[in-house]
Amino acid sequence: MSENNLIAISGGIGGAKLCYGLDQILEPGQLRVIANTGDDFLYLGFYISPDIDTLIYTLAEVNNKETGWGREDETWKTHNVLGELGADNWFKLGDKDLALHLHRSKALRNGETLTSITQDIAERFKLKTVILPMSDHIIQTVVDTDEGSMPFQEYFVKESTNPKVREISFESKHPETTKEVLEAINDPELSGFMIAPSNPYLSVDPILSIDKIKQTIMQSNKPRVAVSPIIGGDSVKGPTAKIMEEMGLEVNVMTIANHYEDLIDGLIIDNTDEEYIQAIESSGIKVKVSNILMNNNDDKTRLAEEAIEFLNELS
Amino acid sequence: MSENNLIAISGGIGGAKLCYGLDQILEPGQLRVIANTGDDFLYLGFYISPDIDTLIYTLAEVNNKETGWGREDETWKTHNVLGELGADNWFKLGDKDLALHLHRSKALRNGETLTSITQDIAERFKLKTVILPMSDHIIQTVVDTDEGSMPFQEYFVKESTNPKVREISFESKHPETTKEVLEAINDPELSGFMIAPSNPYLSVDPILSIDKIKQTIMQSNKPRVAVSPIIGGDSVKGPTAKIMEEMGLEVNVMTIANHYEDLIDGLIIDNTDEEYIQAIESSGIKVKVSNILMNNNDDKTRLAEEAIEFLNELS
Repeated sequence: MSENNLIAISGGIGGAKLCYGLDQILEPGQLRVIANTGDDFLYLGFYISPDIDTLIYTLAEVNNKETGWGREDETWKTHNVLGELGADNWFKLGDKDLALHLHRSKALRNGETLTSITQDIAERFKLKTVILPMSDHIIQTVVDTDEGSMPFQEYFVKESTNPKVREISFESKHPETTKEVLEAINDPELSGFMIAPSNPYLSVDPILSIDKIKQTIMQSNKPRVAVSPIIGGDSVKGPTAKIMEEMGLEVNVMTIANHYEDLIDGLIIDNTDEEYIQAIESSGIKVKVSNILMNNNDDKTRLAEEAIEFLNELS
Repeated sequence: MSENNLIAISGGIGGAKLCYGLDQILEPGQLRVIANTGDDFLYLGFYISPDIDTLIYTLAEVNNKETGWGREDETWKTHNVLGELGADNWFKLGDKDLALHLHRSKALRNGETLTSITQDIAERFKLKTVILPMSDHIIQTVVDTDEGSMPFQEYFVKESTNPKVREISFESKHPETTKEVLEAINDPELSGFMIAPSNPYLSVDPILSIDKIKQTIMQSNKPRVAVSPIIGGDSVKGPTAKIMEEMGLEVNVMTIANHYEDLIDGLIIDNTDEEYIQAIESSGIKVKVSNILMNNNDDKTRLAEEAIEFLNELS
């Protein structure tokens, strides 16, 4: 697949699975992932970037397959002693994982950008894919719920997604992207864009909330496809379906198609959702039907191959 | 020993051994340790207080007996991954130990004093002894060497005490102690002061460099004894003897007696140093001879008992 240069737009777990498949079949440097940083937060004084971390660990094949987050073969010594000391330890940090946060936080304090330290860490993990934070500024995903407004991590981890979501917004004093992201989008060698099956509202929308990113992608003449995060009326993982219901949206692939309507040329949906093909195509979006549940690495590379094939058909 | 209320002046390892012995035989609250914070430093963004940590871990009986610093049953996951990431990891932090630094650093950022968070941590470890930082301000021990001037930890850990010491100084914008330390020194119930066998130049002098501490102790009418950190012309542990030589001092207990001359009423020296009794006593300091090498817990409590007995003889 040496002719392909792709940009993936991705959040954490679900998106990282497709990125893993793409990374496996593409040549070094051919995949650039624009990663959501709307979930980033400060914890115990250091900067945590959950989606970037999940992408790095997944592509480096050191991710924890059971939890879906963090590293494999992890221990929890620091976390447990924090508990014994009566310290805040609602966010569970593994001992190996912690080193990444300490290292990155120090770099940021020293004036490095998130883009630059992410590149440095990716090289240490010998990744062949480039991970580009959507911004070097703080853009915070804020979830307005029936229990009040809260930053994403508080909603997701501390409150275990229990509060009912009313609205999601993105707060920033500098809602700007980076020159690296814009250069990637404008790369004349680019084959196209792929929106990974991450949560559209919590993981993809923060990226698209940066006006310059959305406009530059819209102005590109390269094809754009999305892989649905919804299968048969439910989300594969995480709170996507729950949030859709709470926001009064129908939980099906048609809603996903409508959500990305302006942006995408094609949508990959699951076999179980064939009934929606006609409705989606009549809205001007091409549909590809496949088995989009990624249970293992073979699923990931197979779906990645099909997605690239679909993208090339649309160009 | 219910009639004894003691103040110990202590640095880390050697001093902590005597404090352990005192802690074992005294009632809760009877021992207050004024601890050296001249070695404190910032590392990876958090505040580390080596002597306070050694005192806490030693009194809580969770200290690492082999290394002499840090906690027992320790692991090094974060430290090792920091190395893999190319991060600074010259200061070896264990995974359990790290939690203490993270917890304390957060408290300090939140405006707590070092005194208050130390008290909080001591309670978590169920200590019956009170540990009082010599100051809530930064007072930094600076070692001037043939390879330049450097903060203590850099000299001690990064440079492994290899540079030759020319002079030791204490730098501070606020060389002030705390009200808790002054209240302890002025406590009418106090039985006396004990200078633990820590390095006089690197661990005790930073405490005495605070004019108010030294003057208040000098004005007290309570007896004051020191336990020699030198046995038979060498230091028990650490670089005391090496530093004394480099600063042109004779390495023997007479030099220790001269160093503390203004301050102490009595000095406890080792059996092997009996030859110095007369010279020390002729300088006005009473001498007690004992086996002052503390190899095990029995040694520590026995020496602590003898030191208390000696202190009471002098009152």
